[in-house]
Amino acid sequence: MAEHEVDGLLLSIGADLPYFTGYEAMVSERLTCLAAAGEGPPVLLVPELEAPRIAPRPEVFEIRAWGETEDPVAMVAALLGGARRVALGDQTWARFVLALQERLPEVAFQPAAPLTRELRIRKDPVEIDLLRAAAAAADRVVARLAQHRFSGKSERELAREVAEMTVAEGHQIATFGIVASGPNGASPHHEPGDRVVQAGDAVVVDFGGRLHGYCSDTTRNFVVGEPPDGYRQAFEVLRAAQQAALEAVRPGVTAAAVDRAARNLIAAAGFGEYFIHRTGHGIGLEVHEDPYLVAGNDLVLEVGMTFSVEPGIYLPGEWGMRIEDIVAVIPDGVERLNRSDRTPAVVA
Amino acid sequence: MAEHEVDGLLLSIGADLPYFTGYEAMVSERLTCLAAAGEGPPVLLVPELEAPRIAPRPEVFEIRAWGETEDPVAMVAALLGGARRVALGDQTWARFVLALQERLPEVAFQPAAPLTRELRIRKDPVEIDLLRAAAAAADRVVARLAQHRFSGKSERELAREVAEMTVAEGHQIATFGIVASGPNGASPHHEPGDRVVQAGDAVVVDFGGRLHGYCSDTTRNFVVGEPPDGYRQAFEVLRAAQQAALEAVRPGVTAAAVDRAARNLIAAAGFGEYFIHRTGHGIGLEVHEDPYLVAGNDLVLEVGMTFSVEPGIYLPGEWGMRIEDIVAVIPDGVERLNRSDRTPAVVA
Repeated sequence: MAEHEVDGLLLSIGADLPYFTGYEAMVSERLTCLAAAGEGPPVLLVPELEAPRIAPRPEVFEIRAWGETEDPVAMVAALLGGARRVALGDQTWARFVLALQERLPEVAFQPAAPLTRELRIRKDPVEIDLLRAAAAAADRVVARLAQHRFSGKSERELAREVAEMTVAEGHQIATFGIVASGPNGASPHHEPGDRVVQAGDAVVVDFGGRLHGYCSDTTRNFVVGEPPDGYRQAFEVLRAAQQAALEAVRPGVTAAAVDRAARNLIAAAGFGEYFIHRTGHGIGLEVHEDPYLVAGNDLVLEVGMTFSVEPGIYLPGEWGMRIEDIVAVIPDGVERLNRSDRTPAVVA
Repeated sequence: MAEHEVDGLLLSIGADLPYFTGYEAMVSERLTCLAAAGEGPPVLLVPELEAPRIAPRPEVFEIRAWGETEDPVAMVAALLGGARRVALGDQTWARFVLALQERLPEVAFQPAAPLTRELRIRKDPVEIDLLRAAAAAADRVVARLAQHRFSGKSERELAREVAEMTVAEGHQIATFGIVASGPNGASPHHEPGDRVVQAGDAVVVDFGGRLHGYCSDTTRNFVVGEPPDGYRQAFEVLRAAQQAALEAVRPGVTAAAVDRAARNLIAAAGFGEYFIHRTGHGIGLEVHEDPYLVAGNDLVLEVGMTFSVEPGIYLPGEWGMRIEDIVAVIPDGVERLNRSDRTPAVVA
């Protein structure tokens, strides 16, 4: 905090709080907030009815419960004491930010992310083990999907099956699942719907879960019988682009350089305008966190950083494709945490 | 907006945006934001890769997509034009609030909730039909649970079964599920864990899902064989308290009065200190929204308001119990949307 010239820190929903305390706040209109300021131990202010959820760690924080008729914003303000520069967790709701600002007009609030990112962005070996375990569980789901029947089922039904497999293969929860079939594949964040998968469809499956707090996130492609014209040629471009990005990963290169490695190949093949997102995002306690592999991001990769490498090509009205692996930066370059086959499996 | 003396409105994640546009923003580090200011139509600014998810409604809003290397905060600032008093959606992330404030130091930001609440708090007949349908689906889950085997299963396993039933009985998704057995029942927001349900346990099951955007939320109690000493007597207190609160609901009374009706009975029976939460919360597109039934809330109930009535009693280390129904305020008083049996079912 001193390095970042702040004398107060407030962390609410999001991953900063569990990173420091082991406790994840419920996303709710009832404020949960860790307040660190001054010499005393940080105080975790929680709604009274949620206090029993917390595993006490008196060496890390004190617990203070607020009752339903108390004003938690006033309590946070009091906990800050005389702090004048206060860092606020990224995902804190606007209602609390505005209420704190109104109550403490003399305080300058700034984002906590620059401070917490420095601690969270390089994973230690235990964290990488957990990410590796989550990735291996996701790979087992991919292996099952390669033997799975797709045709005749709706995207929604398939998404439900993917979520069930995500838990069955070892995740504690499934956090998201995209099943985008045929032309829907061209929408990278497609919401699985009523469309029934049929012969000739290419299907993008992007899913993930959490294991001991750490996230998996992988994307593979499936074809029901023979894919559309041009699909296989485009896929070879995508495969080469993803491989080029993987090979670009090593300590000392920038996040932007990894993005460029994939993008240049896709653009050279004439698909540049159809690769409409960044090449990847960091992953850890959050499924999206720093570092982001995107043009303009000069952040230099270091050992222990973990992120997705996931170029895609999206032809509106026709099909989409994306290959996504989670990787860790190691002294020699890169470790792929996902190891499942990247070739589109031909499914029934 | 004029009534609330604001000349700009920004809505991001949460239910305000789908209420006005039909589109729900993904919770993400990529900003989605509806900006309304000046004479033109509101503009929905979305990440380019999410634009295909949006059903166009040109009579309601324009769509503008931002690419991965653009700065959405700068774009929002430009969309606000010369607005000087801007209302911000409740759940907007702090990172965006702080970035907007830094870019627009001359703008006064205030919460949008007072404005959007006025529109959302009274449900129209179509909304109440949807809430009724969601409640009926939840009631079917309760009926199945009354015939379900609990003993020998972990809370986590039971929670998974409840989630499956929630979808099977007609919800599009299950949104949450609490299964709190034995002494865990005393934690109102208990996270289902490894504890295996056994003979003599009382079990609190609180769950909900969404149907066409609208939420269900109900709590029922189950006993495995004979419940602990004192449980049945306490349950009669709770039942009477919930009934008293239901009977207190009618147009013209305050939210606080409904809370008081339940609380007085529980306190008179000596359990006052064990009823550690408010009596209820509004429900609609969000599972928790205005109005809140809590001491001090002088909001006057009106026809069309919908909320939970859910007193509880929690004896630390022993057991917990809660009865929760969703209700609508009607001209004559109250309509219970949940109709399942409130008596604790005796289960295997």
